[in-house]
Amino acid sequence: MDGLGGLPRQPGGKTELETAHTPHMDALAALSSLGLTIPVAPGITTGSGPGHLALFGYDPLHYEIGRGVMEALGVDFELKPEDLAARGNFCTIDDNGLVSDRRAGRIPTGLNQQLSRLLASISLDEGRVYILPVKEHRFAFVLRAAGLSTSLCDTDPQKTGVPPLPVTANDPGSAKAARLVNQFLGSAQKALAKHHPANMIMLRGFARLPNIPSFPERYGLNAAAVAVNGMYRGVARMVKMQVLEVHGVTLEDELVALEKNWPVFNFFYLHIKKTDTLGEQGDFNGKVAAIEEVDAALPRIMALNPQVLIITGDHSSPAVLKAHSWHPVPLLLYSHLVRPDGISEFGERACVRGSLGTIPAIHIMPLALANASRLSKYGA
Amino acid sequence: MDGLGGLPRQPGGKTELETAHTPHMDALAALSSLGLTIPVAPGITTGSGPGHLALFGYDPLHYEIGRGVMEALGVDFELKPEDLAARGNFCTIDDNGLVSDRRAGRIPTGLNQQLSRLLASISLDEGRVYILPVKEHRFAFVLRAAGLSTSLCDTDPQKTGVPPLPVTANDPGSAKAARLVNQFLGSAQKALAKHHPANMIMLRGFARLPNIPSFPERYGLNAAAVAVNGMYRGVARMVKMQVLEVHGVTLEDELVALEKNWPVFNFFYLHIKKTDTLGEQGDFNGKVAAIEEVDAALPRIMALNPQVLIITGDHSSPAVLKAHSWHPVPLLLYSHLVRPDGISEFGERACVRGSLGTIPAIHIMPLALANASRLSKYGA
Repeated sequence: MDGLGGLPRQPGGKTELETAHTPHMDALAALSSLGLTIPVAPGITTGSGPGHLALFGYDPLHYEIGRGVMEALGVDFELKPEDLAARGNFCTIDDNGLVSDRRAGRIPTGLNQQLSRLLASISLDEGRVYILPVKEHRFAFVLRAAGLSTSLCDTDPQKTGVPPLPVTANDPGSAKAARLVNQFLGSAQKALAKHHPANMIMLRGFARLPNIPSFPERYGLNAAAVAVNGMYRGVARMVKMQVLEVHGVTLEDELVALEKNWPVFNFFYLHIKKTDTLGEQGDFNGKVAAIEEVDAALPRIMALNPQVLIITGDHSSPAVLKAHSWHPVPLLLYSHLVRPDGISEFGERACVRGSLGTIPAIHIMPLALANASRLSKYGA
Repeated sequence: MDGLGGLPRQPGGKTELETAHTPHMDALAALSSLGLTIPVAPGITTGSGPGHLALFGYDPLHYEIGRGVMEALGVDFELKPEDLAARGNFCTIDDNGLVSDRRAGRIPTGLNQQLSRLLASISLDEGRVYILPVKEHRFAFVLRAAGLSTSLCDTDPQKTGVPPLPVTANDPGSAKAARLVNQFLGSAQKALAKHHPANMIMLRGFARLPNIPSFPERYGLNAAAVAVNGMYRGVARMVKMQVLEVHGVTLEDELVALEKNWPVFNFFYLHIKKTDTLGEQGDFNGKVAAIEEVDAALPRIMALNPQVLIITGDHSSPAVLKAHSWHPVPLLLYSHLVRPDGISEFGERACVRGSLGTIPAIHIMPLALANASRLSKYGA
């Protein structure tokens, strides 16, 4: 459950998870080991990318995912290793070429889509560009060509009254990428000249896919991802999980995909987005209801008879903060081989009393593999 | 207590330690700090060698003990730093020299002892060989000569229908060792020719004693080990503890050795094997009884008035798993200087509530030394 961890609405109150009526998770908790996870480091609020890498057992301080890559993954774009990705903004420049609005008045998404098609038609000396509209003024930029390095500065000056910056290469190896991006920016400015307020673009966070070891190879697992949103599908694809087709966006649709593929894979990552979305919207009751919806689905998952089941999140998203937070994330680890804590409740404060303690999220995968009897002994 | 940690026999039940009637340990727990230890890393099941290194404060991922060394320690052989040790198997080869049985039909231990004497009489150009029978087809091989390196490949092909491999040196420095071992293997084949099914041997896991800092020097302790089984005596000897003579194999015999030597040393490692053996045999009640036997002996140990007393294990060995496991190990730390938890119970789930938390086992020694007032202040 994305952003699972929460905070009480008022001092002395309960968190979203503690408020939710979760009879199935509570019953499972009694047979499980409980704890809390720290996604990246104490006090650090993580984004979804690093938060998921940690869940998958990759140290997110070692494996960095650049902003551009996150943006492209977020729209479910199948990035190739050689692709150079960036986060793009439509913006407004005045007659002197100075930025007057870094977000082009937050143009409607429909207009964004139309202008993105226009930009995507720009041709370059070499390679090609993909422009993938996101919301309002935002898009993902992908340049596909051979030999592109990522050491490029942003073109977004982060303030108004100055011109957008040209892309400059920070090392000699990135000169080719800088040349092609600048060629594109020149053409984009001409193409957008008559589309005020969206008469220019800015790019930032140039990055390529990080070189991350394959999850299936690392753990010897035939792993599948059940997720609806692009970013989570993208992160799963990045670590070489099989991203399953989900025919719809509801939990029901995800469960159907899980059940259908159950015989084919031996590891499933099932992503629930609503808990995070509602937390970020500040909708405490909505997040409670989303957790209760998952609880109601738990018997259906348990009916598949998983050897190991883990319920946790990639970070906390307390409704009172309307944002991701640094608070440790509740963790439930069920298997026939755990030493059950006998705590009949799944909630933040119940998890504090759990036997797993408060652990780095990257410890989850070794514990999961141990409980699946998939690790051999160290030494004699 | 070797393999101390356990698991409930059924969900909701108690572990071996929780089941055992342990009035003395429970009373001591109330005056102690409790916790749990992770021997090597989360989810990792450890062998006894690395598990003991961790207890003694040596990172078992840094100090590796090779298979051959474990085998020689296991028969209480006094390995010298220059000795090259390997695990040996008697095996069967057919008329074409191909391995037909990697274990020589698991010959009786008596025959193994007889053939080991035969092999030990083989003389080499240089140095000498010790053949130390273990059980059935297994023995420890030790080559004592100057200048032997360990970068040698195994001769066990790990399958039948192929010949045993010659030893080859993986680096130039190991050429001498390879030559002497191959000379021995040639002579062994001739000597065993008429002893079908044990008409050949295979060696694997070539290793020398790791270069481990001396326990007495590292901690400024005059340290003694009270253990009956070879491997534990060997590991203690490896870190330069004084391994005491024990006249028998019972706990009573160990206690007599402890009491007799109490005035001479200021650190004792007392090893109880039965808890692990019975856990590995799947004998839940037997392991419970073994723990109760130790509990009954506790007043006798406390009568010696130890400044610090630690009760823990090198790993868990739950009877339900009939094997070592990764589960954290109960830890009790008693001294006059602890902040007592006031928890009147020594058991896995009581330890979860303890003030020490779940900690790497290598943290035990610094805590022990602190509680013995043997550490000086860091900085001013």
